[in-house]
Amino acid sequence: MLKANCRTSWNSTEIMPQIHSSSYVDESATIIGDVRVGKDVYIAPSVSLRADEASPIIIGDECNIQDSAVFHGLKGSSIELGENVSIAHGAVIHGPIMMGDECFVGFNSVVHASTLGKKCFVGHLAAVIGVTLAEGSFVPHGRVVDTQEKADALGRVPESLKDFNEEVVEVNCEFAKSYGIRRRSCVGQ
Amino acid sequence: MLKANCRTSWNSTEIMPQIHSSSYVDESATIIGDVRVGKDVYIAPSVSLRADEASPIIIGDECNIQDSAVFHGLKGSSIELGENVSIAHGAVIHGPIMMGDECFVGFNSVVHASTLGKKCFVGHLAAVIGVTLAEGSFVPHGRVVDTQEKADALGRVPESLKDFNEEVVEVNCEFAKSYGIRRRSCVGQ
Amino acid sequence: MLKANCRTSWNSTEIMPQIHSSSYVDESATIIGDVRVGKDVYIAPSVSLRADEASPIIIGDECNIQDSAVFHGLKGSSIELGENVSIAHGAVIHGPIMMGDECFVGFNSVVHASTLGKKCFVGHLAAVIGVTLAEGSFVPHGRVVDTQEKADALGRVPESLKDFNEEVVEVNCEFAKSYGIRRRSCVGQ
Repeated sequence: MLKANCRTSWNSTEIMPQIHSSSYVDESATIIGDVRVGKDVYIAPSVSLRADEASPIIIGDECNIQDSAVFHGLKGSSIELGENVSIAHGAVIHGPIMMGDECFVGFNSVVHASTLGKKCFVGHLAAVIGVTLAEGSFVPHGRVVDTQEKADALGRVPESLKDFNEEVVEVNCEFAKSYGIRRRSCVGQ
Repeated sequence: MLKANCRTSWNSTEIMPQIHSSSYVDESATIIGDVRVGKDVYIAPSVSLRADEASPIIIGDECNIQDSAVFHGLKGSSIELGENVSIAHGAVIHGPIMMGDECFVGFNSVVHASTLGKKCFVGHLAAVIGVTLAEGSFVPHGRVVDTQEKADALGRVPESLKDFNEEVVEVNCEFAKSYGIRRRSCVGQ
Repeated sequence: MLKANCRTSWNSTEIMPQIHSSSYVDESATIIGDVRVGKDVYIAPSVSLRADEASPIIIGDECNIQDSAVFHGLKGSSIELGENVSIAHGAVIHGPIMMGDECFVGFNSVVHASTLGKKCFVGHLAAVIGVTLAEGSFVPHGRVVDTQEKADALGRVPESLKDFNEEVVEVNCEFAKSYGIRRRSCVGQ
């Protein structure tokens, strides 16, 4: 379901999402307002990307947004993801957000009002709130990072996880292409 | 999707949800059974309000229920929210629940088997389980409050957050009105 | 929505889900690929069971998968649940997973790359990652169990919770039956 944002006291323009033709949005996902989705992006079932308050929401090439993830944000803010970013199942991404290329955000985690440098890895059930993460920061599972002091004390992504996001991106670029081909050919759905 | 609860050994009556005409329910939300939604309520994409076990679910005027939030509860219990309550993205509200006016529950948080006084603020990725929160209680991000002792030790909502919920409510009352007008006029969807 | 997985470089076969006729899948749930659902299973609104990477996903008799739960997994892995398992609202179950009979996983919790013996109880907002849980293990609310040492140090399910999952299963078997009867008779929907 793609639809325009509603008109409000702070935004009188209804804008429809723009999805690049090489990207795939599952039928059960909802995308509202000025959402700009780049090339080869995979958007999974029950995702909500809602640019009626934070706007625009910009999603770079080769990103993947997994099942039940939610993007929304505070009035007057925006959300921008670089390329090759993975937002895993159930994560809440709440603007204002700037996220660099090749970041990974884990299952049911929360990222709000923050700036993430490139190649950050946010573990599962973790919260990143109101901070700036340096490039390559590693947030362990379950960690709450809600002061800049905690953010500055984080370690770097360990060697064992350095290739993890690249593999996730590779798989999901295949999903974008293959689910998209099937939809366009009307086979199997 | 609005539909009646199913008949069970503990409830032989099928009841349809009642949504006030000034409130808005996104097309991808699911509302089942004896759910009573007051005036000027906004219900976001992929929400599930399911009154087939805990019943009824009562949502007061000017509440907002954000994307992918879930309301359900144990058999024989119920859920009641006062007015101007905000349930943020991904939160699970599980009966029995009594929640006073002007409470805020954060992203991916859990509130279960609890009573919250007015103006409580539950942070993100927090859990409130089996307790009573005094009016104006503040649950920090990521905190697990699962004994009354922990509940009694909570501080009060800080000054910097005292107006936060009011702003959220104001924005979402606009959403209820504006998305509703558009739906009724069949423009843009 | 039931549909086949897409074809990928690691899987050239499109497979449709197989749902036993006694089980119920809510209209807003999405089930994709080689998902095999046993008897008397209840699958709630906005659930996503997606066997396009981890495959198959096998769900035993009398399980229940609650609102907005997500099943997915790493390439080359699979997910298998025994009988009478409850996956509560918002939980993420990410393969490889083997879960024994009568396990319970709580609200918004994460279980990934793990093996759970029978009758484990995972609390709310808890994470179980990369470990083996012995039969009857108890994971408290909010606990992160991401090393085998932490897993081995867990206690057993307390007496007060020993019958909890049985009651959940009983209620949900009624839901599978009763929602299913209504759908087949086309009454009330």
